[in-house]
Amino acid sequence: MGKSPKSSSVTTGKKSEETRTRILEAALVLFRKRGFGPATMRDIAREAGVALGAAYYYFSSKDALVTAFYERAHRELAPLAEEALTHAKGLEERLRAVMNVKFEYFAPNRGLMAALSAHIDPQNPLSPFSSEMRVIRDQDVGLFARTLEGSKVRVSEDLKPHLPRLLWLYHMGLLLFWVYDRSPKQKRTMHLFEKSASIVANLIKLSGFPLLRPVRKVATDLLDTIYGDEAALGGTA
Amino acid sequence: MGKSPKSSSVTTGKKSEETRTRILEAALVLFRKRGFGPATMRDIAREAGVALGAAYYYFSSKDALVTAFYERAHRELAPLAEEALTHAKGLEERLRAVMNVKFEYFAPNRGLMAALSAHIDPQNPLSPFSSEMRVIRDQDVGLFARTLEGSKVRVSEDLKPHLPRLLWLYHMGLLLFWVYDRSPKQKRTMHLFEKSASIVANLIKLSGFPLLRPVRKVATDLLDTIYGDEAALGGTA
Repeated sequence: MGKSPKSSSVTTGKKSEETRTRILEAALVLFRKRGFGPATMRDIAREAGVALGAAYYYFSSKDALVTAFYERAHRELAPLAEEALTHAKGLEERLRAVMNVKFEYFAPNRGLMAALSAHIDPQNPLSPFSSEMRVIRDQDVGLFARTLEGSKVRVSEDLKPHLPRLLWLYHMGLLLFWVYDRSPKQKRTMHLFEKSASIVANLIKLSGFPLLRPVRKVATDLLDTIYGDEAALGGTA
Repeated sequence: MGKSPKSSSVTTGKKSEETRTRILEAALVLFRKRGFGPATMRDIAREAGVALGAAYYYFSSKDALVTAFYERAHRELAPLAEEALTHAKGLEERLRAVMNVKFEYFAPNRGLMAALSAHIDPQNPLSPFSSEMRVIRDQDVGLFARTLEGSKVRVSEDLKPHLPRLLWLYHMGLLLFWVYDRSPKQKRTMHLFEKSASIVANLIKLSGFPLLRPVRKVATDLLDTIYGDEAALGGTA
């Protein structure tokens, strides 16, 4: 408590990691209780039982705390999602497996994520579309590539580079709908997810038909326009 | 300048309307120059050359200024859009006509709208999906109903109640892409608009085929799930 941030006890290994985690946990508690806007770094330090200087030593700002929250979520979610995929076969089943892991993991912080969803401008470092979030985003797009690959669905070559990113966008849309969903137990999101997952899986299966090549051309052309050369919006270029 | 807000000169008719407009204009100038967050009501009053009390007399908060901006935009845009529609025949041409009017009208405030786009939570009164914005949203959905009706496209009965709202969502998506578009003269948005307008128009034409009834059923079912009984998200229930 109140240790100088530069003391050896906070800068060395496990102890340091514990303090960092404690501050992050305290921040999440406060964000959930009071909202992201009103909570100050001072409140967070107090809640964590550390000196203000120590809090700033680990996190330069509230934004840094949010980034840490996303990074930890990504780190913890990745193995859970891969594990869920090992038990799921069909594409629809695999999509459900991944999304259910995400919904369950994020449930305690749904309100916080609603507040954070204000950051959608790709120029905001906290936006899921920012260049700062690119590493996390690319790995997440990779998760959807594996969701596709493990299923038996034959994906046509022209769509292959696009589909994982489209699935990622679909999953972002679901999450956004979910954070704003005020129905009991987010029932509306669950209905939407039920119905849309089978539609999405069927569309992907249909998309492989050779006759649909012209339609695929129109679609990939449109996607290239959306992503442009920047590829800042939504994953691997 | 600095008149008491309750004096007869500000509360009566034309003069009052002029003062209100001057404050709104001053606010928009400041929002553009400094961003929505940093500008205060005090700055706005100073920029408008009125007393702080007068500014508060007309607008209870910065949010009230934003609402006034949206309302005025809606009021001024409606006749421009209807006028543009009288010269456009085909569905694609009509979509282009409406969107071009909107892009042109909002161009000076594109940066401000990027800042305001943070308000997407339907519970935020400034959100385009809020119940507070419902009147404006419904009238806007009506504009897209007329965009459809005036074209020669035959819309199937089952889709009829849904299409105007879908077109409205498409237009919201375009506007959102546009406010974040950092390419010179928003070229990327213009390309996206070029390509997607013809796709959207063709999809709507295709959707009328009697054989596609099962597909329409799936789509309208999904839309009903998204809108739920609340109809808070995106227009007329």
